[in-house]
Amino acid sequence: MSVVEQARRGRDAAEALAVATRTVKDAALRAMADALVARTPEILTANAADLAAGREAGLSAAVLDRLALDEARVADIAGALRQMAALPDPVGEVVRGATLPNGLELRQVRVPFGVVGIIYEGRPNVTVDAAGICLKSGNAALLRGSSSAAHSNAALVAVLRDAVAGAGLPADAVQLLDASTRDSVKELMRARGLVDVLIPRGGASLIRTVVEESTVPVIETGVGNCHVYVDAAADLAKAVALTLNSKTQRLSTCNTAESLLVHAGIADAFLPAVLAAFTDAGVTVHGDARVAAYSDAVVPATDEDFDTEYLSADISVAVVDSLDAAVAHIRRHGTGHTEAIVTDSQPAAREFVARVDAAAVMVNASTRFTDGGEFGFGAEIGISTQKLHARGPMGLPELTSTKYVVTGDGHLR
Amino acid sequence: MSVVEQARRGRDAAEALAVATRTVKDAALRAMADALVARTPEILTANAADLAAGREAGLSAAVLDRLALDEARVADIAGALRQMAALPDPVGEVVRGATLPNGLELRQVRVPFGVVGIIYEGRPNVTVDAAGICLKSGNAALLRGSSSAAHSNAALVAVLRDAVAGAGLPADAVQLLDASTRDSVKELMRARGLVDVLIPRGGASLIRTVVEESTVPVIETGVGNCHVYVDAAADLAKAVALTLNSKTQRLSTCNTAESLLVHAGIADAFLPAVLAAFTDAGVTVHGDARVAAYSDAVVPATDEDFDTEYLSADISVAVVDSLDAAVAHIRRHGTGHTEAIVTDSQPAAREFVARVDAAAVMVNASTRFTDGGEFGFGAEIGISTQKLHARGPMGLPELTSTKYVVTGDGHLR
Repeated sequence: MSVVEQARRGRDAAEALAVATRTVKDAALRAMADALVARTPEILTANAADLAAGREAGLSAAVLDRLALDEARVADIAGALRQMAALPDPVGEVVRGATLPNGLELRQVRVPFGVVGIIYEGRPNVTVDAAGICLKSGNAALLRGSSSAAHSNAALVAVLRDAVAGAGLPADAVQLLDASTRDSVKELMRARGLVDVLIPRGGASLIRTVVEESTVPVIETGVGNCHVYVDAAADLAKAVALTLNSKTQRLSTCNTAESLLVHAGIADAFLPAVLAAFTDAGVTVHGDARVAAYSDAVVPATDEDFDTEYLSADISVAVVDSLDAAVAHIRRHGTGHTEAIVTDSQPAAREFVARVDAAAVMVNASTRFTDGGEFGFGAEIGISTQKLHARGPMGLPELTSTKYVVTGDGHLR
Repeated sequence: MSVVEQARRGRDAAEALAVATRTVKDAALRAMADALVARTPEILTANAADLAAGREAGLSAAVLDRLALDEARVADIAGALRQMAALPDPVGEVVRGATLPNGLELRQVRVPFGVVGIIYEGRPNVTVDAAGICLKSGNAALLRGSSSAAHSNAALVAVLRDAVAGAGLPADAVQLLDASTRDSVKELMRARGLVDVLIPRGGASLIRTVVEESTVPVIETGVGNCHVYVDAAADLAKAVALTLNSKTQRLSTCNTAESLLVHAGIADAFLPAVLAAFTDAGVTVHGDARVAAYSDAVVPATDEDFDTEYLSADISVAVVDSLDAAVAHIRRHGTGHTEAIVTDSQPAAREFVARVDAAAVMVNASTRFTDGGEFGFGAEIGISTQKLHARGPMGLPELTSTKYVVTGDGHLR
């Protein structure tokens, strides 16, 4: 079936989803969870086929691990659906309302987008998560996963569609697109008018391609060249711990710190300690000349280093002469994801927060906290790094639009 | 100067605007208003040059009227800026906030986009309105007006820039792009990373071009194929008045009704009355066969008629057998702008509101009410017909993004 035909079916499904009550949608989510658990054997058989193909294709152990499912992982994925069922329904929320001077009753109400396309890589749990978040927010999902997970995704989506239909909603609320060809991505990007929004998740090049070529509105996610700025007034012990946590708590996520800026006034006191901590943690430091003066282990940093999202045990480090210089550096090299300041100075914190232009600004907190789960959203479809519509972690409300409902009694203008 | 260079200057100006207080911004708006009044003569001289060129180029009387300024019009334009100064500042509003279980303080705060590009036609008042709305919301404006208003716009922007600078904000908060060439539009559409959002206002073809070619995020405005559906349970006198108001109160606006759907059950009672009213008002009815049966004055409608935004004294009219058929017709032909139902039936109103997918749904109210002024927003930059970010009339909050500010005390994950 063509993507256009799938998108049409998605539109029809979306019409029913838009008016489905929370009771019906939550019952569907729980049915999806139950079905995943009950049909785990067929899911694992399909997953084994992907793993075998992946090993043959020479995928790395890390990639194979992300692809692998077992009984416990399927149970976890099902559990996430049950948690979604417990979240409030964003649809129908009255965002703003007033009775106008002429007596017209104005309400701005949350409504689903309609059809949401999601392009993602690797992990099969995203298939279920995305299907669940879209269904809860009243949207039909067009899922374009990785070819490496094709068997697993096909099995998961077959189970989900049966459960959705069993709960009285259209099976086409969840559709999987052909992952064997790039054509499905191209068709999806051109399905303006049929697909309401496209969310690419994954590598920087995929996201750039979608942003540049899509005529369907896009929510950009993911690239994070996140900085920790250690201010002159920082508590140094906290600063070392926080920098290390931001860099090493998990290396491959978009909210991982990739660059450290150190105020010149505390460089003597702070840099030896943090450089030693990095060495102990196995992190390679790419530093400017002023940083290199503190340790032989520092690799000279190029300007490119300061633009790099390493996603590895590497960090770029520079000394800056002022908060102003730190802000200027972040303006030049940041990607608008997460920027952190470590300081005990209230004026410094206030200025950093006001002047840094990013989805999230942390004061004395690890960059790793930019996350829908950490923010208490209960569900997350990605982290937006654009300014339009959604910025930062996207939960259920970010998967909705609004509609003005205006009620009168024959009102004329 | 190239558009890219102007966008860079806009970014620098936006950095200062983002941290400007409401007091400073409102003083700038009032200074802009005062300067427009004080320097009216030079504005009118420039306007006279545009009018002379327009007459030479054979522009219609209506277009020339929209272009024309006089002392009273300049005073009105200045008054609109003073009204903006009285509106609340959207920047800094805390949209949501919580203390997380681990003690982190989370706030989602409104921030300006940064640089906003606006492409528009004809009327010079849009130049001042757009500059004012952008400044109030902390954004730098890149204005690309019509070549027919080039002299007027240049004079207005010169006055505004002087006033902005006099109030202590960067003059580059307001910049006019070269209107003599299409290249400036092309460059603007490609200035991703420098321009944060692009708002095209004007004809359908301009909007389509921008939506399809821009890599800068776009907010689509304007096209409205708006329907009035007269339900079986409608009060017929109210329905005639409301249909007429929706069509004729102003012919050339996007919230003008372009199509009328009549429930078969009241066609005998309603159609003769409304057709007579249209004839009296000089409106040509393009009707389907069932409508044509009621009057010789009906022009046979093609399928294309039902897709047409006339913006003239024409309306397409069809008889439908049910509310369901009306919703299906609107789904097929509507543009997601404004759809109205006239009914005294609560269940019919509820179903129409739930099922119709549009920026605004009117119950017993004229389609003409979809308007920032009517909604009480105080200022409007356009009416969005897309679902992402803003839908319906866009006021000051719609010209902002948000930023998460997370404050801790050395919090690690």
